[in-house]
Amino acid sequence: MPADALLFSNSRPPGAAVPFAHAAEPLRRHVGERTLWFAPWAGGDLDAYTGFVAEALENVLGPLDVRGLHREPDPAATIRDADPDRETVFVGGGNTFRLRRRTGDNGVLDALKAREDLRYAGASAGSNLACPTIMTTNDMPIVDPGGYDAVGRIPVQINPHYLDPDPHSTHRGETRQQRIEEFHEENAVAVVGLREGAWLLHSDDTLTLDGYTARLFRRGHEPVELPAGTDLTWLLATPTS
Amino acid sequence: MPADALLFSNSRPPGAAVPFAHAAEPLRRHVGERTLWFAPWAGGDLDAYTGFVAEALENVLGPLDVRGLHREPDPAATIRDADPDRETVFVGGGNTFRLRRRTGDNGVLDALKAREDLRYAGASAGSNLACPTIMTTNDMPIVDPGGYDAVGRIPVQINPHYLDPDPHSTHRGETRQQRIEEFHEENAVAVVGLREGAWLLHSDDTLTLDGYTARLFRRGHEPVELPAGTDLTWLLATPTS
Repeated sequence: MPADALLFSNSRPPGAAVPFAHAAEPLRRHVGERTLWFAPWAGGDLDAYTGFVAEALENVLGPLDVRGLHREPDPAATIRDADPDRETVFVGGGNTFRLRRRTGDNGVLDALKAREDLRYAGASAGSNLACPTIMTTNDMPIVDPGGYDAVGRIPVQINPHYLDPDPHSTHRGETRQQRIEEFHEENAVAVVGLREGAWLLHSDDTLTLDGYTARLFRRGHEPVELPAGTDLTWLLATPTS
Repeated sequence: MPADALLFSNSRPPGAAVPFAHAAEPLRRHVGERTLWFAPWAGGDLDAYTGFVAEALENVLGPLDVRGLHREPDPAATIRDADPDRETVFVGGGNTFRLRRRTGDNGVLDALKAREDLRYAGASAGSNLACPTIMTTNDMPIVDPGGYDAVGRIPVQINPHYLDPDPHSTHRGETRQQRIEEFHEENAVAVVGLREGAWLLHSDDTLTLDGYTARLFRRGHEPVELPAGTDLTWLLATPTS
């Protein structure tokens, strides 16, 4: 059975000031006393971003052993050698294309694919990377990602920062829902549009939405609103229904 | 000297009801009595989309000879054989990744690269395809595009449907400006954020913004507001300054 995956839309719900304050309980269960390997490659300044996230998590959870994976001489080897009872990986947000490119180049992507026994946490781009592909990212393709396959810790797609259409807008660009419908013109796998503040927890072969609401998109079905607390375990068996 | 390229953000400015009504004059000069080869591959239903655009253009310009390039037995050959004095290509909007994939697969991308002497018009994804790469699209990567290089009819990047930040939003996703700044963390080429209703005209070695306003992003420079009518010819010589 794969280890737990805790996949955040982002670090906070609408209007909240303190990152991860709303998610202290699941984070505490997920991280506990473990070493947390933070993967900052979606970001720009890797040291600064690692420091920012370490501070944000310690602010909520108390003292932690957060280490920047990018500081390791061979980050892929660090993942390959990680102790599943004492270490957790946390993949941060930023630009998903850059994250996919860098983790593809340095071997971390393949190492993560091979370590389903290692607890995985992700936020935004880091949650995109936990899906079968990165194809439901909102990011701009600022680099060639070198491929679209991702870690595949869950069998469905996440669209993080899911955004409802603004009824007052005159903008003619596609709404998020229209973009996801375009995805389903080309792909069959379900997409969970995680509003800000929401997360998915994959644990012991269950899948649960919590933290905030989401919108579920399945090919050939009308979209469905999901309240916080929804059990989505059935999706694990029928991700392309 | 390359033939004219007329590159629209989209088909209409904010609040306008009739597609291309604000752009009748440049479209008339660009298309005239020519056959217009419409390339609909960014869209879903290719016949319906071609019909929709043909009707919209005829509504503004009067009777036209609009033909769907996807209906040709060998669309790349049609481009290769096109008469530059009698034919113009128009690449429509939709999903840029799908457009890049399909035109890469069917040879139209390479054919367009080789025909700088052929007048090019584009809207949205079709304008992205006229740039050096498709890396400043807003679209979701619903398919692997098979590459990021594009036709390169202008030496700078367009971000179509450029959107200003909403000061009342609590959304934590990146603003468009932040996404373009991320692009400049990885790339040097200038980006013209074309607000809806704006277009660029590349003609006789001049580059002009018209139709609406835009915002210019250059690496290492503060963004600059551009009013309609701005002469951007200097950018042609220094696209990565």
